[in-house]
Amino acid sequence: MKKLAASTAGALMIGSELLSGKISDENLAPLARTLRTLGVRLTRVVTVLDDLDAIATELTALRTSLDIVFTSGGVGPTHDDITIAAVARSFGVGVREDHSYRALLERTYGERCTPVHLSMALVPEGAELFTTPDVTWPALVVGNVWVLPGLPEAFRSKLSIVHAWVQGPMVLHSRAVFLKTDEVDITEHLNAIVKAHPSVEIGSYPKWFDPTYKTKITFDATNQAELDAAVQDLVNRLENDVARIE
Amino acid sequence: MKKLAASTAGALMIGSELLSGKISDENLAPLARTLRTLGVRLTRVVTVLDDLDAIATELTALRTSLDIVFTSGGVGPTHDDITIAAVARSFGVGVREDHSYRALLERTYGERCTPVHLSMALVPEGAELFTTPDVTWPALVVGNVWVLPGLPEAFRSKLSIVHAWVQGPMVLHSRAVFLKTDEVDITEHLNAIVKAHPSVEIGSYPKWFDPTYKTKITFDATNQAELDAAVQDLVNRLENDVARIE
Repeated sequence: MKKLAASTAGALMIGSELLSGKISDENLAPLARTLRTLGVRLTRVVTVLDDLDAIATELTALRTSLDIVFTSGGVGPTHDDITIAAVARSFGVGVREDHSYRALLERTYGERCTPVHLSMALVPEGAELFTTPDVTWPALVVGNVWVLPGLPEAFRSKLSIVHAWVQGPMVLHSRAVFLKTDEVDITEHLNAIVKAHPSVEIGSYPKWFDPTYKTKITFDATNQAELDAAVQDLVNRLENDVARIE
Repeated sequence: MKKLAASTAGALMIGSELLSGKISDENLAPLARTLRTLGVRLTRVVTVLDDLDAIATELTALRTSLDIVFTSGGVGPTHDDITIAAVARSFGVGVREDHSYRALLERTYGERCTPVHLSMALVPEGAELFTTPDVTWPALVVGNVWVLPGLPEAFRSKLSIVHAWVQGPMVLHSRAVFLKTDEVDITEHLNAIVKAHPSVEIGSYPKWFDPTYKTKITFDATNQAELDAAVQDLVNRLENDVARIE
């Protein structure tokens, strides 16, 4: 199977429940980690209400500026599930019944299968269904847009399909050093290290109320030797402050 | 004290760590719940990398289309903390030292106070500091933009300042009915209820692997009687499926 190449990615998190605080998003971090593993750079995420115009407009902006886009949420049989219609609008296409999806629904639900169940087989024209040998319930792909369900368990099952089909250009190596020191007290060392190792992406994250460390310094690079040199530089400067390295 | 009136709100979540999956956002849901309590409608959230241009551009789009905007993250003394510069760029102003903030830093850190600590007193020109009697470490406000820290404990402490100072036009009443039934099996009833109660916002959220319920139906309305009527309509239709009502 030929993989789908992508360097940059975006995501559209759909659902009024995310913007009212009724539900906390659980899908962005697993998506981000999957893309990172694949070497695809996630650069922009937008969260919107269940509003057809807003979803279509934001999706068009994302899919025309980035290589690949993932939507989360708003697929299902109820009145607030309008993602399929919004994706179709963004692409300027209609909605049709997918025969293989309908057959899957009929096989799965058997005698319980109603028109409501079958409505889930309605997809934007031109949609493709992607599966893997392990995940046979398909992920819906329209152009460069993966239309994924919002329910976290279902979303994560689709990520294994993403993992099998998508491939980015870079492999990123990562390490993290946990320090027993406040961020503000190591800033000058950190700035010197950032300057000395321009090919390494360095992040600094303070933590309150953790007995094991106060600041986490992360290192990411495509070159393993350059990564190790930056980590070693920090360790040399702040040896007595290091709680652990991961 | 005169409160700040706002009907619509947006948020800008800043940090490459959110888009690499190194850190899961914990700030959106508490912000959303605070705004909901205040009667302010959060309509759009954008998550961006630590990139000056991207932050400034997204912030300008949000602050010119919505009444009030909250940023999360990227404030602090290290190289990846560029939110202050980006906010200044969005407003087309410079960065200056705030004297009262500097005095606060000097009082707090005493002899430990270094130029790195004092760099935190650099704010966009025109910035104001908001406090409450209980939270005396200030929140930074520039025009209609609240510049909040990304660390969840610090972010939440600022939300009590938001709560004291911001006021929306509406009070929303809410209830939720938990059903022991799959969403797909109650969709026709739900669609009828949505149609019969147009002033009530109704959401439907399936849940997997929870022994107590399978679908949560949420109701929101500014009119309590209309809210209660919609809830009663659902209960009348699906009495035997109700696990609990909250």
